[in-house]
Amino acid sequence: MSLLEDLQWRHAAKAYDPSKKVSQENIDKIIEAARLAPTSSGLQPFRLIVISDQETKEKLVAGALNPDCMRDCSHVIVFAAWDRYTSERIDKVYDLTTDERGLPRGAFSSYTGKLKEIYLEQPASLNFEHTARQTYIALGLAMAQAAELRIDSTPAEGFSNEVVDEVLNLNDLGLKSVSLMYVGYADAEKDWLGQMKKVRIPMDEFAITIG
Amino acid sequence: MSLLEDLQWRHAAKAYDPSKKVSQENIDKIIEAARLAPTSSGLQPFRLIVISDQETKEKLVAGALNPDCMRDCSHVIVFAAWDRYTSERIDKVYDLTTDERGLPRGAFSSYTGKLKEIYLEQPASLNFEHTARQTYIALGLAMAQAAELRIDSTPAEGFSNEVVDEVLNLNDLGLKSVSLMYVGYADAEKDWLGQMKKVRIPMDEFAITIG
Repeated sequence: MSLLEDLQWRHAAKAYDPSKKVSQENIDKIIEAARLAPTSSGLQPFRLIVISDQETKEKLVAGALNPDCMRDCSHVIVFAAWDRYTSERIDKVYDLTTDERGLPRGAFSSYTGKLKEIYLEQPASLNFEHTARQTYIALGLAMAQAAELRIDSTPAEGFSNEVVDEVLNLNDLGLKSVSLMYVGYADAEKDWLGQMKKVRIPMDEFAITIG
Repeated sequence: MSLLEDLQWRHAAKAYDPSKKVSQENIDKIIEAARLAPTSSGLQPFRLIVISDQETKEKLVAGALNPDCMRDCSHVIVFAAWDRYTSERIDKVYDLTTDERGLPRGAFSSYTGKLKEIYLEQPASLNFEHTARQTYIALGLAMAQAAELRIDSTPAEGFSNEVVDEVLNLNDLGLKSVSLMYVGYADAEKDWLGQMKKVRIPMDEFAITIG
């Protein structure tokens, strides 16, 4: 199947069948799509928290706008971004990059120096706006990967960041939650959106062509 | 090919062969992937400006950190987000949705009412942060679609928003530029990144598993 067919197939599931679980193999593929996502300067400034145990999900219910999805889905993936850029974080990524490419460490130091000049002078809140944006690239690709596997998913921004960050101790990891992705198999009867036509803005309005 | 193979294949091209152009059919597929991208509340709060004529690209060179990519790529796609949410914009999307689904207009009015309560009380800058984030979902899917077609692309945040917004008159459209995507066929010799190993944070560091 093509990506376009997968994207036509998917929708944001509104109810999950709690008896159906996603295999570890398929969860790994969904995470891998997020891991391969391109990010600004290749920094991958976010992590995924992958939750399948019911106890943790129950703790997160208090912060969820759609508690049934939280309870009934197979896995919840939390996309959590770096709370700020630091020299150490930037260097760690580029040390890995040079090591893996057989280059001397510091081979990109003029580039990373510029990144540090820009990011380290910004307030942490502005850093976070940038790291948070990057998570959406990965979120989109993770949803596309789930769709390719014909696994349902639901992206969610509407939740209590405070509850999620506290339950998962994200502060200790230097992370802040940005979005949730529920993953599982929809309950065909309760999932009202699955029965409705997908609607998008017409192409000629969505894209403005010059040339 | 699978999405994971496509993502392994792609990289951010650093130089393009100006003699190779992407067909309209393939550009349409790339735009379509962005159009099908899921967005918050289905609002699709952004537009794509698709530029292939050299004259407009030359005007944008002044704002580009990588002028050679701007000049030599086949197409530049500008991802531009709504500068703010308005009642009219929200209603227009939901009127289309209800019309397409054969529902009476206003069928989702309690939901859109809540959206307006939240968004219209925020400053425009906070609205824009939210609309800008949504563009990254579409950017990721557009890059994945290009990769499926074995077309090279380069995402770019580093450019002058002022130049791009002014050249394209985005202000008049209620839009602000967020990112660029260069599309084309890489110049294999000059594209230094294409010859290097793709590096990503190891899976066990990227994903934290609970349960």
